[in-house]
Formats: sequence, structure tokens, C-alpha cells
Amino acid sequence: MTTTTTRRSTGCRGSPRRPMSSGDALSPDAVINLEFGDPTMYEAFWREAGERAAAVIPGWWGMSYFSNAGGLCWYLEPELEREVRRVHRLVGNAMADGYHLVVGTGTTQLFQAAMYALAPTSTDRPVGVVSPAPYYSTDLLLSGYYRWAGDANAFHGDHGGENIELVVSPNNPDGAIREAVLSSDSGKGKAIHDLVYYWPQYTPITSPAAHDIMLFTMSKLSGHGGTRLGWALVKDSDVAKKMVYFVYGSTIGVSKDSQLRAAKILGVVSDAYEPGPGDGTQLRLFDFARRRTGERWRALHAAVAATGTFSLPDEITGYCNFTKQTVAAYPAFAWLRCYKDGVEDCAEFLRGHGIVARGGEQFGGDARCVRVNMMDRDAVFNVLIQRLSSIT
Amino acid sequence: MTTTTTRRSTGCRGSPRRPMSSGDALSPDAVINLEFGDPTMYEAFWREAGERAAAVIPGWWGMSYFSNAGGLCWYLEPELEREVRRVHRLVGNAMADGYHLVVGTGTTQLFQAAMYALAPTSTDRPVGVVSPAPYYSTDLLLSGYYRWAGDANAFHGDHGGENIELVVSPNNPDGAIREAVLSSDSGKGKAIHDLVYYWPQYTPITSPAAHDIMLFTMSKLSGHGGTRLGWALVKDSDVAKKMVYFVYGSTIGVSKDSQLRAAKILGVVSDAYEPGPGDGTQLRLFDFARRRTGERWRALHAAVAATGTFSLPDEITGYCNFTKQTVAAYPAFAWLRCYKDGVEDCAEFLRGHGIVARGGEQFGGDARCVRVNMMDRDAVFNVLIQRLSSIT
Repeated sequence: MTTTTTRRSTGCRGSPRRPMSSGDALSPDAVINLEFGDPTMYEAFWREAGERAAAVIPGWWGMSYFSNAGGLCWYLEPELEREVRRVHRLVGNAMADGYHLVVGTGTTQLFQAAMYALAPTSTDRPVGVVSPAPYYSTDLLLSGYYRWAGDANAFHGDHGGENIELVVSPNNPDGAIREAVLSSDSGKGKAIHDLVYYWPQYTPITSPAAHDIMLFTMSKLSGHGGTRLGWALVKDSDVAKKMVYFVYGSTIGVSKDSQLRAAKILGVVSDAYEPGPGDGTQLRLFDFARRRTGERWRALHAAVAATGTFSLPDEITGYCNFTKQTVAAYPAFAWLRCYKDGVEDCAEFLRGHGIVARGGEQFGGDARCVRVNMMDRDAVFNVLIQRLSSIT
Repeated sequence: MTTTTTRRSTGCRGSPRRPMSSGDALSPDAVINLEFGDPTMYEAFWREAGERAAAVIPGWWGMSYFSNAGGLCWYLEPELEREVRRVHRLVGNAMADGYHLVVGTGTTQLFQAAMYALAPTSTDRPVGVVSPAPYYSTDLLLSGYYRWAGDANAFHGDHGGENIELVVSPNNPDGAIREAVLSSDSGKGKAIHDLVYYWPQYTPITSPAAHDIMLFTMSKLSGHGGTRLGWALVKDSDVAKKMVYFVYGSTIGVSKDSQLRAAKILGVVSDAYEPGPGDGTQLRLFDFARRRTGERWRALHAAVAATGTFSLPDEITGYCNFTKQTVAAYPAFAWLRCYKDGVEDCAEFLRGHGIVARGGEQFGGDARCVRVNMMDRDAVFNVLIQRLSSIT
């Protein structure tokens, strides 16, 4: 949710502007805030799911700092580990067997933990973290060990190996499917794969990913952003141990309550796709989300086509091993480009129409582009479509 | 739970040795691990409390990143804020009115947030953090902006003002009541007050604390260490905003599940002390904990007196405004000094007797001292007393 900033210059950003969308009734002139990736679209699904999705936490449960003291990730609840591995097996989006599971307080913490683990110990210079533009950059003000170094495309060649590459696939903001740029140069580069959108509602599942470090999060899978629960699948045990150590030093593990709840939610997700004693009326999350995001993308494409003022990236299609059909990708963000004469800053232009989105420059890209959250509640999304359609 | 370390030298500490105590049946030769402050003594209370203490979290609840978007701490659940202010009013241990409430993923995160907020922005040198020995030091490997600088007593005078002082009162490891050492020198020093043990079960509540930054945590109040939920009462709004920004950058807020659960637990704690429609059989947490810790301290004093090998700090007594009587302090840790001839390292000596405790050198103190957790389960504490009693 953050953007590249210089050191300590942004204390005032402690209170990000609120999504006006969060639960308010929308007045006709309300500004809608689609700047963040707040995944509130999923609330409707979980309301339908009812009691079976409720987590009940007795007062005496989970009081110790320790969950699985014999394991590498000693604060990881075994129930969560089972459900994480189960959902990956079900969906087939990542190899989990043979990987260590490291849980974090959201992928934000795990991303920092991975950089800490990969940064060389031998130098006093902070290691650079790069990603090809447009990229989802992260505020690294909290550490002296790594820094955001910008566009990976500028680092091809001999110097690339000194940096850590962040590979986000599907990419944030534009939904592109990506592979490492730098790491492949030398065969020994270090990469962190952010696969938080590699679920069937967003993109075809083409094969189980098997990278060295793969990050996932509840917020993009099921919509539970407030739960602050992410995980990493990590091949190398020394890297995994260093990541666990970072989480220990930064927050002494991860909330047991979040872990219990995430296990419950993941269990409901997986149960619906597996034969069992269910009542046959179980809602299927990936189906729900694909249906919703599909409707939204069709509405957005129609609005964009009607105005002639904007464009969207080309649609990606592919055969999905999970749904067993050829499907279109429905990214969680729209990467909207404005073609209107005289408009150099699309975010500013949209703000004039009551739409707050994140400007392309914040992704190392063009100011004529903006990133728009596609995952807000229906009421907000519908206003977005109305307003975009009215722009000529 | 950590100790001062040099930069990045301790990746192997990612899996702290497990407290053998956590739920296992104890065999006669089992090593008991009292190195950490795992507060599992409270489990017995919360088992008694039964259903009234259970948190129920519907699947659709708390999905957004935002909780209280209009507030300074935009990820703070209003229900938690109410209960935190209520328990401070009830106990009278800290001024909450007029203070900003900043929630964190445990006080570990809040301590780092406070240092981030207090560190000068104008220098590239990391700011030093100091505390008089023996101190509970923190691993600051995660930042380039502050570093552990050691014993505050070494910094009196002109140079003291450049450091941030950590004031832990009651102190960890020795239970002493403390005031700032450096800050009072110039009247303009910066201090962080860690008051996590300033609750009636540990020490007499003599007056409501009213320092610039005061840290508290569920783990020491109610025993919910696994919930990873702490809070800071902060006088200055700019400091509070910077702390919120740190939590945002490090974990994008704090688990809503932990917040909901903490609010539930705090509500049960406060309800028992306030007139209401209760059934009159409600358990009172502070009474329970004082009774237990009192019994334990008496047993420990008796064991120490019987051996003649150890000593404990002098007992502190005082009038407690909460219990309305003069009471003894019952610290959460015993700071045990060994007098046995030939024993230079008390931690090593105790390890030979099947007791793992944290050595005094890790607190900037004497290796003949150790810190022993007093808050483990009864079965473990009883073994501690048996083993100490058998040492001659």
C-alpha cells in the first residue's frame, strides 16, 4: 500500500486518506477512493457463508508465544499450516511440498523478512531491491539494510547480480504475467516472487509455481485484509530461518488469533471444492470471485469503450488447470491510461471527477496511467462505472 | 524476548529454544525452560472464565484494512479503544484522557515505532537507546536508525541528551521501580516508558503514570502473549502519527482479530470489577493473579532461604490505590543471584540442574544473576521450586 519515498520524509503519511467507500452510504457527490487494494468485494461472499465461517476463540486458547516449538517456524499454528498446504494442493498454484512455510503479519512483513534474509551480510552498503516498471514499490524506510533501487530494466548486465529482484506475478498494477529479469542473467541472482494474485479468480493457473521464495496473503485470496496474515513458501532452510528471525525480532511471531481465523477461512474455501459431508449448497469462493470480477471487467471495458478517453491493457487468456477451461485474467486492479488531450496527470484528472486512484508515477510509470482498485464493494464499483462512463 | 546482538550475526536464533513447559507432561528429568516470559500461568483463569471470554469472529467481519479512518490511528478498532481506556480508568495506572492511543503488534513493534518517532531526522548516525543496567535490551538489528547503546548510567552529562532512554518500570529483570535517569538531566531528554508490568498483580499502583510515551501489552496484563497486541499512550500527536506510520510501513496496521479478542478479554477483566448485571460469581483477574503470584513468591523465598545458595532483591511494598491496601510487589521475573563458591555463571549452573533461565550478562548485569520466569504453568513452577530447594 505504500510507495517509494526518501528516508523519513513521510511521517505525515501515517494516516492514509480513508477509502470513503468503507461502509458509508454513498451520496451522489461523494468522492470514491480506489487508491488502496482494500478487498471488501468479498464481504458479500462471507456474509452468505454464515456461521460455518465464524472463528470461535476461547479465552484460554493461544496464550503462549509458541505454537509449534519443534518446527522451523515456531510461532506457526499447525492447523494453519495444514490449511495453507491444502489450498495450494487444491488449486495447484504453487509447490508446497518440500517448502518451508513461514508466516508473517501480512506479506508486507514477509517481503521485508525476505530482503533481510537475502541481503548480503558482508557489506555495509544497503542492498538494492528492483522490479521492472510499472512496479508496486515498497517503502523501505524502516531498514538500513536494503533500499528501493527502482526499475529492474535499468540493471541488466554485470551489476544486476548485486540487487534483489522483486517479481510480482500477476503484476501490480497492470496484471501482467512476469518472470525474473535480472536473476536469469547470471543464473545466480536473488529473487522474491510475490504471487499474492496467483489465484483462479484473477488469472489462469497454468502450473504450480516453484520459486525460491513465494509470497501469498489472505487479503487477496479471501479478502481478509484486516487479518494481516501472509505466508511464504521458502525452499532454502537457512533463508527460512532468517525470515523467521526477522518476524521474531519485529513482532515476536504472528497473532495466533489471525492464524486461527485464517485456518478457519481457508478450511471453508477448500471444503467447498472437495467431496465431503457438505450440504451441497456450499458457496465456492473462487467461483464467486471469478463471476464478480468478470462482471466488473466487462462493465469496465464497456465504459472505457464508450468514452474513447481511456484504454486498458490487453486482456490475457489462458488454460486454467484449476477451472479446466480457457479463461480470461481478471486483475484486482485496472491500469487505466488516459488519452484525453491536455491531460498529463490522469490521477488529478480523475480526482476532478470524484475518483481517487493511484497515479502511474508512483509505480515508476507514466503519469497518464492510474491504478484503480477493482475489489471494493458493489456500491462503490457501480459509482466508478457511472462516473467513468460520463467522462467524454 | 531478545537480547542485544551485533548486526546480522544471529540468524540462527530464529528458533528460540522451546519452553519445554508448554503443555507437556513433565517427566522427572525434563529440563524446564524459564528463559522467556511466556505468561501461561493465566490459562487457568481463562479456562474458569469459560464462554463469557470467548471471542466470536464472523467470516465477514474486519475484512478492510481500515477500522477508524477518521482517527489518528486509522487501523484501531473503536471497541478496543473503549476497553483500553476503560481498564486504565478502572485500575488508575496511567492517564489515558488526553492521550493518543496507538496500537501495535505487541510492545516489541511499538518500542521500535517509538524509537523511529523520536530519532532525529537530521542525522545519518543511528540514535542510541539506553537503559540503566540491569536492563531488558532489545535486538535492534532491523533498523539503521537506532542502535542499542547500553547502560544509561554511562551516559550522564552532556552527551546523554542525544540518546533515547528506555525506562522500564517495574523493571525487567529485577522488578525495581524506576524513573528516567538521563531525561531528567536536561529536562528535554527523550524517554520511552515501558509500563507493561504496571498492573496490580505485579506492583502497588501508586499513581496514574503520565509520561510522554507509555507502553502496555495484553501478554502481561491478561496473559495473552500469543495475541501480539500492545498499545502506547502518547501525549504528542506528531509522535503518535509517526508511530502509526511505522506500524503502517512495517505491517499495515494490526490484526483486527487480535484487536477484537483483546477488546473481549479486557471487557471481561473490567466487568468483574464494576457494578453490573453479572451473576456475582465472576472471577476477578487481578485478584486471581495476585493470589497466584503471591503464593509463588512465598514459595520461592522459602526455597531460597532454605538453600542459602541464592538471594533475591529486597521486597518492595507500598500502598496500592487500586486494592486500597499496602501490598508487596510480586514481579513477573525472579532476579536470582547465586552465592555458591566456584559458580561464576549462574545460568550455566542452573542448567546443570535442569533449569533454563536467562543469564545476567544478557541484561548488562552480573553473570552470577539469572532471570527466571515466574509466570509459567503451575506444574513447571512447582518443579522449579523442587529443584531450587534441592540445590545445596
